[in-house]
Amino acid sequence: MEVKFRLVARRNADGQTAVQIGPVTIGRGSLVIMAGPCAVEDYDRTLATALALKEYGVHVFRGGAFKPRTSPYSFQGLGKEGLEILAAVRDATGLPVVTEVLDTRDVELVCRYADVIQIGSRNMHNYALLREAGRAQKPVLLKRGLAATLEEWLLAAEYVLAEGNDRVVLCERGIRTFETHTRNTLDVSAIAAAKSLSHLPVIADPSHAAGRRDLVAPLALAAVAAGADGVMVEVHPCPGEALCDGEQSLDPAAFARLVPLLRQVAAARNGLAAAM
Amino acid sequence: MEVKFRLVARRNADGQTAVQIGPVTIGRGSLVIMAGPCAVEDYDRTLATALALKEYGVHVFRGGAFKPRTSPYSFQGLGKEGLEILAAVRDATGLPVVTEVLDTRDVELVCRYADVIQIGSRNMHNYALLREAGRAQKPVLLKRGLAATLEEWLLAAEYVLAEGNDRVVLCERGIRTFETHTRNTLDVSAIAAAKSLSHLPVIADPSHAAGRRDLVAPLALAAVAAGADGVMVEVHPCPGEALCDGEQSLDPAAFARLVPLLRQVAAARNGLAAAM
Amino acid sequence: MEVKFRLVARRNADGQTAVQIGPVTIGRGSLVIMAGPCAVEDYDRTLATALALKEYGVHVFRGGAFKPRTSPYSFQGLGKEGLEILAAVRDATGLPVVTEVLDTRDVELVCRYADVIQIGSRNMHNYALLREAGRAQKPVLLKRGLAATLEEWLLAAEYVLAEGNDRVVLCERGIRTFETHTRNTLDVSAIAAAKSLSHLPVIADPSHAAGRRDLVAPLALAAVAAGADGVMVEVHPCPGEALCDGEQSLDPAAFARLVPLLRQVAAARNGLAAAM
Amino acid sequence: MEVKFRLVARRNADGQTAVQIGPVTIGRGSLVIMAGPCAVEDYDRTLATALALKEYGVHVFRGGAFKPRTSPYSFQGLGKEGLEILAAVRDATGLPVVTEVLDTRDVELVCRYADVIQIGSRNMHNYALLREAGRAQKPVLLKRGLAATLEEWLLAAEYVLAEGNDRVVLCERGIRTFETHTRNTLDVSAIAAAKSLSHLPVIADPSHAAGRRDLVAPLALAAVAAGADGVMVEVHPCPGEALCDGEQSLDPAAFARLVPLLRQVAAARNGLAAAM
Repeated sequence: MEVKFRLVARRNADGQTAVQIGPVTIGRGSLVIMAGPCAVEDYDRTLATALALKEYGVHVFRGGAFKPRTSPYSFQGLGKEGLEILAAVRDATGLPVVTEVLDTRDVELVCRYADVIQIGSRNMHNYALLREAGRAQKPVLLKRGLAATLEEWLLAAEYVLAEGNDRVVLCERGIRTFETHTRNTLDVSAIAAAKSLSHLPVIADPSHAAGRRDLVAPLALAAVAAGADGVMVEVHPCPGEALCDGEQSLDPAAFARLVPLLRQVAAARNGLAAAM
Repeated sequence: MEVKFRLVARRNADGQTAVQIGPVTIGRGSLVIMAGPCAVEDYDRTLATALALKEYGVHVFRGGAFKPRTSPYSFQGLGKEGLEILAAVRDATGLPVVTEVLDTRDVELVCRYADVIQIGSRNMHNYALLREAGRAQKPVLLKRGLAATLEEWLLAAEYVLAEGNDRVVLCERGIRTFETHTRNTLDVSAIAAAKSLSHLPVIADPSHAAGRRDLVAPLALAAVAAGADGVMVEVHPCPGEALCDGEQSLDPAAFARLVPLLRQVAAARNGLAAAM
Repeated sequence: MEVKFRLVARRNADGQTAVQIGPVTIGRGSLVIMAGPCAVEDYDRTLATALALKEYGVHVFRGGAFKPRTSPYSFQGLGKEGLEILAAVRDATGLPVVTEVLDTRDVELVCRYADVIQIGSRNMHNYALLREAGRAQKPVLLKRGLAATLEEWLLAAEYVLAEGNDRVVLCERGIRTFETHTRNTLDVSAIAAAKSLSHLPVIADPSHAAGRRDLVAPLALAAVAAGADGVMVEVHPCPGEALCDGEQSLDPAAFARLVPLLRQVAAARNGLAAAM
Repeated sequence: MEVKFRLVARRNADGQTAVQIGPVTIGRGSLVIMAGPCAVEDYDRTLATALALKEYGVHVFRGGAFKPRTSPYSFQGLGKEGLEILAAVRDATGLPVVTEVLDTRDVELVCRYADVIQIGSRNMHNYALLREAGRAQKPVLLKRGLAATLEEWLLAAEYVLAEGNDRVVLCERGIRTFETHTRNTLDVSAIAAAKSLSHLPVIADPSHAAGRRDLVAPLALAAVAAGADGVMVEVHPCPGEALCDGEQSLDPAAFARLVPLLRQVAAARNGLAAAM
């Protein structure tokens, strides 16, 4: 399989690339924690959430301004206003922000506000968008498509790298299977396999995988145990009131209890790399 | 489930919408046959193919100018030049042409040349593109995403209709399953179910479902038997030389033998609608 | 792949085996129709159903005596009493009967009453049962496992043939996918592919695939169009009262309307074999 | 969903059942480690393996005597001779042994030799075998079917409990998905969800999930992080010579390096249960 990959392929046993996002290093044994609400709703609430998360050890703040929704009648995000809120929160907290872009025509706009641009699961096969992200001067968080094979996911990253942007972070977020008990099935094997095939860092999104709050913490721990370089977790100050994905959001207190456990598991799995 | 659908929902037992493409009516018991090569390669070959297909009874000519490819290093289509070839072939043969659009920024361009614009499987969840197609003045062929549920597929159509374009033709092209013997699994149940839930016409693409030549004819017949209003088949004058998807293309002679059998099956399944 | 198959592999282009069940020939262009209730409930109702079905052209009567149920608290079938009812119905109507066996210890018992023994989807990987069926003196109807690959299905048949019983009829009954709109996804490609790889006849069970009455007829037609040598359909005189799977059972009148359409589609698809 | 479960349902927040296997307790925060070769091959090698594994901290020795194989022409295990070897190894080492049973007629025989009887993935829907296991006087290790939903898996356990045997240990071993990079997709969500729905202990089999040696350790760590009460790992003294599944077997040295890391992760995830 490796012959298909030119730029994403791992070159040697040590060869992991670290992606730098401002002061934050992703990859090479570190554990990056990204968190925030599914969608940006208003400035005050977003700022309060970011301040709390910063205190709990979060490195990157996430929040959606353009939301891809299955129904055209669902809340679609605040758009440019959401980007402005994110930038203001970044300025107030010092936390880099990551947000999704949905349209080739918006890449430049999103890059003006965000520190990392996200290509979501529904757009992993959107090659026009991948190319545009490859021409951007920002790191790219590339989620795995909901039914993308490992090979397709790495080739999607190859599209970005082929345009000259090698700051790509892969993100496993669950795949679609027959099982309906969770929204998606977090594929921890893909985390380990992606890290073995590619030099790019890999993080996990346990929130979209689970689709339900009670499984987010076990899945986050499992992802880190399998080798993930970080996690991205949905946290909302009041999940019951969230405009989007409230049922899978942790409240800040639950999130705070999770963080030290993630570090403990990361220490153990780093031992694996050393031992093997 | 129906409550989620406003514009795509079937309103009454008889209420199927026919979509008109020039002289061709899709839906209401007719059987539309679309055929052509995966990708447009050059004018002479494309024209010769179209002339042969017209003689065999094809109603709409298909050909790709912008090709979505898993690898950035695969042939990506001729782009604007491909569109020009398609338009010239349409002018020479009188056959309406359908071709795929991949980027919101290209919708206007593609509409200038094509009679029907196709949203491919990889972009079914690309809501920005769906909206743009909804604002276009052309019929839209909307393929089902490779792991899209029936509900997500209909809601993707809802995005197009919600922008004011109600000339949408749904296209089942196989879903991703564990089975590797075929490239995808043609979901004939979804054809029957989509027609029962929605007033929109539904066709099938047996070529992408099968991924191998020998199964295209049986799958085309099965799709029509299940209620499809038409089929879209990849035909290449010399499949062994095709720049794209040759292994699943029929040659014109095999295609010619298939057409009358499709009509025979359509007659039988129209009997079902009358009997039930 | 073919090298793995010794006894089930197709030997030459014409080489389809016909399986004889009393006066009924399965394979070689014929269309066999099997129908009956999911579970045998009582003699009078079973006989009345069989008499009606015989009149409509059914060749083999189906009915479950041992029912594999997901929950231990669901109706498990009448067991030996059900077998006795089936045998009495066979004697009264002349229709051969097919019924499922679940336990290696029951194979001899079931063979005493049935004309065809069925290995159900849940037991396709039950190799002990397959071997026992291979030692039986009865034809075997072998359903595809709900997530079995084509290769595993053919190798399950190989288990039966390897014990000396070559009267095996394969039955596609839908596979498990992410789609929840139907109970399973009828894989018509597998019908065509199985017939191409193996000399064994292949039928389809549209009732278990659909899990809902309104899709049974379109799926039955699609299966035959794809090349199935027959169908097995659940028919209950009063689906609303069925002890098992009533929601997917046709009533006799709906079934009667379906039969001639199946024959029409079979004629068309036999033309395909002749033309190709 | 819970209403369907009578005996397997979790009764209260603390209510986990511990299953006792000789001196070994499974459940309630402990971490049980089962290991051994896929198939028992001969006494000397089996004993040597077991002695090494005991030294590394293994609690239960696994080894197959009856092997379910996709092809009838693959090595099928040593049968009764394999059971005798296992019992002799148990006597020599003091390690309880677990081995699979495939046929209702063999349950009594296997119980005579084994400390735990395993129902494998292919037989999870074999209700006759589940009932027979329910009547046995031995603990049952119940693997999840390769495409079984969480609900079906718990209902399979319900079959065992309904016959009076409540010593059931669930085992997640990967599910079948579209991804071919690993043999199966380890579903860590199901581990967490099963423990939340049921009082039964849950372990994981990372070896069958991965199907390749290099992913076994990351998957084992991930399973424990997600809440598994233990793991079952294939270890062979010389994987390249194994008669069965050598490509996914660890050698003893690699296994020895894994064990302390599993304990470290278990400590972290036990913190989760305490914190939440």
